[in-house]
Amino acid sequence: MRQRLLDATVECLVERGWSGTSTTLVSERAGVSRGAQLHHFPSKSALVLAAVEHLADVRGVELREAAAALPSGDRRTRAVLGVLADHFTSPVFTAALELWVAARTDPELHEAVGPLEQRIGRETHRWAVELLGVDEARPGVRELVQATLDLVRGLGLATTITDDTRRRARILDEWARVLDDRFQAGADRP
Amino acid sequence: MRQRLLDATVECLVERGWSGTSTTLVSERAGVSRGAQLHHFPSKSALVLAAVEHLADVRGVELREAAAALPSGDRRTRAVLGVLADHFTSPVFTAALELWVAARTDPELHEAVGPLEQRIGRETHRWAVELLGVDEARPGVRELVQATLDLVRGLGLATTITDDTRRRARILDEWARVLDDRFQAGADRP
Repeated sequence: MRQRLLDATVECLVERGWSGTSTTLVSERAGVSRGAQLHHFPSKSALVLAAVEHLADVRGVELREAAAALPSGDRRTRAVLGVLADHFTSPVFTAALELWVAARTDPELHEAVGPLEQRIGRETHRWAVELLGVDEARPGVRELVQATLDLVRGLGLATTITDDTRRRARILDEWARVLDDRFQAGADRP
Repeated sequence: MRQRLLDATVECLVERGWSGTSTTLVSERAGVSRGAQLHHFPSKSALVLAAVEHLADVRGVELREAAAALPSGDRRTRAVLGVLADHFTSPVFTAALELWVAARTDPELHEAVGPLEQRIGRETHRWAVELLGVDEARPGVRELVQATLDLVRGLGLATTITDDTRRRARILDEWARVLDDRFQAGADRP
């Protein structure tokens, strides 16, 4: 039942946005009574936070599966960027975006979103470092991985208004060449 | 009076977000009667769109002023990135973000925001190419300029939840080194 509520919340956020999402709508969509819902999640904030956290965990599992299928060698960097970009243009990003923007002007929500966002950010960073097979002790590497994550976040935001799949692919092609250059491909890559 | 309404709208968007912004609140803040407001802007969508467009124009003037003060030579790329990052962490970005996210789930708003966003995007791109003094006919240059704008958009989104000024500065330092490398600094720079 908890699972159904969380899935329905994410669907609502993606389809109707933060302001169009209500606990009533979620309980109807999930086929769960209001009482049962309030028992699990006493407020809209609690429900949405749990949903985004849950989705981040699910997405983490998907990322690990995608990682297992990545090629090694020359095509690896571009393939990693592809997986990252898919992540930041997926419903989990859209739902998180709704949450972030709402949290900006809602102090109670902001207090809860901050730590969640930091945890997800750290995990994604660690994951990117591992997949790219780079050594953060080398100068500039940490910043380039961070820049890569900010780049795909920016691409994700751009895609919420206009579908720009082709533009995105060309940018990622070029960025993969830059990263391979900077990381001196081959030295410490899987 | 039009000007006062637009300024009040941006202030409302930044302080209270899209859902917390109402035409009543804006007319009160601007000290303008409801009738006069409705005469200028018949709906909330019309008001907010005009406000973001107005702000983008104001910001364009500020960007041109900042551009005039940019250094030439070695420090130029980093300085251009600084101006761009300031732009994407300013109230105009915050107001635009509220509008973009609201437009995602509001078909009427989406129809109007799409063209506005494309116009602003094209202008910002042209401006970045000019300031960086690069030649888009060379392979990869166009994609790197686009990547730069997506990067600063991502940095802008990150900063809405946590202030990360120091992290941002380190990323921009490294990004400037990448661009100078790829653009082969000096050849066709101002």
